[in-house]
Amino acid sequence: MKELPVDHVAIAVHDLAAAVPIYERLTGSSGSTPELVPAQHVRVAFVGMIELVEPTNDESAIARFLARRGPGLHHIAYRVDDCAAELARLVAEGFEPIDRRPRTGAGGHRVAFIHPGTTGGTLIELVERAADDG
Amino acid sequence: MKELPVDHVAIAVHDLAAAVPIYERLTGSSGSTPELVPAQHVRVAFVGMIELVEPTNDESAIARFLARRGPGLHHIAYRVDDCAAELARLVAEGFEPIDRRPRTGAGGHRVAFIHPGTTGGTLIELVERAADDG
Repeated sequence: MKELPVDHVAIAVHDLAAAVPIYERLTGSSGSTPELVPAQHVRVAFVGMIELVEPTNDESAIARFLARRGPGLHHIAYRVDDCAAELARLVAEGFEPIDRRPRTGAGGHRVAFIHPGTTGGTLIELVERAADDG
Repeated sequence: MKELPVDHVAIAVHDLAAAVPIYERLTGSSGSTPELVPAQHVRVAFVGMIELVEPTNDESAIARFLARRGPGLHHIAYRVDDCAAELARLVAEGFEPIDRRPRTGAGGHRVAFIHPGTTGGTLIELVERAADDG
């Protein structure tokens, strides 16, 4: 099978406006314009391969993560060609999905999450990029 | 300044022998031969961009991390051309170093860590790869 490349690594933050300049100074990359992802109750911005994720309300899984563990590394996203097919492959391999079928994430991409309980402790996202975005 | 690329993302695990096949099945990449890094009291293996890190004794910072938080994402490493120069730049920018000067990490590379307290919660490593390793 094709090797899946890392698409991005997500970090949960309390304050996107504070976190973006930190990663800009750290890495020399410019942050993207923040984007609201209403379905997940988050606002995100990218600095290079890092996705900074701020909750927009207490219903967000990111808000619960921050309350429990504080800001820090949240998940790894792998880029896939076909999110539904890759999700089916991983379920057949014994990985437990959080999403039964792909849904729309940041950038309008098709995404699905795999539960950390079956990956040895790390939340994993699959990202099928929208066609116009390479 | 040059943009720093992500070199690898590290995950703390209890059992390298169990974790490597999980990431191999997840990503389709083959795991590297495990390598002992005595100075950090860890054993590591790479699966693609992911470094899986197992403590070899209770003195390891990884053992303390596992006891406190359980297995999961541990740090992000950025690749740099000159670890000492990059460390000096980041200290001048206000980031707090864990290492005052580069030391030898996995693969014989020059590495230095930046404290999560000044990065918004994430432990950051700088990696200057040994010359023969690209």
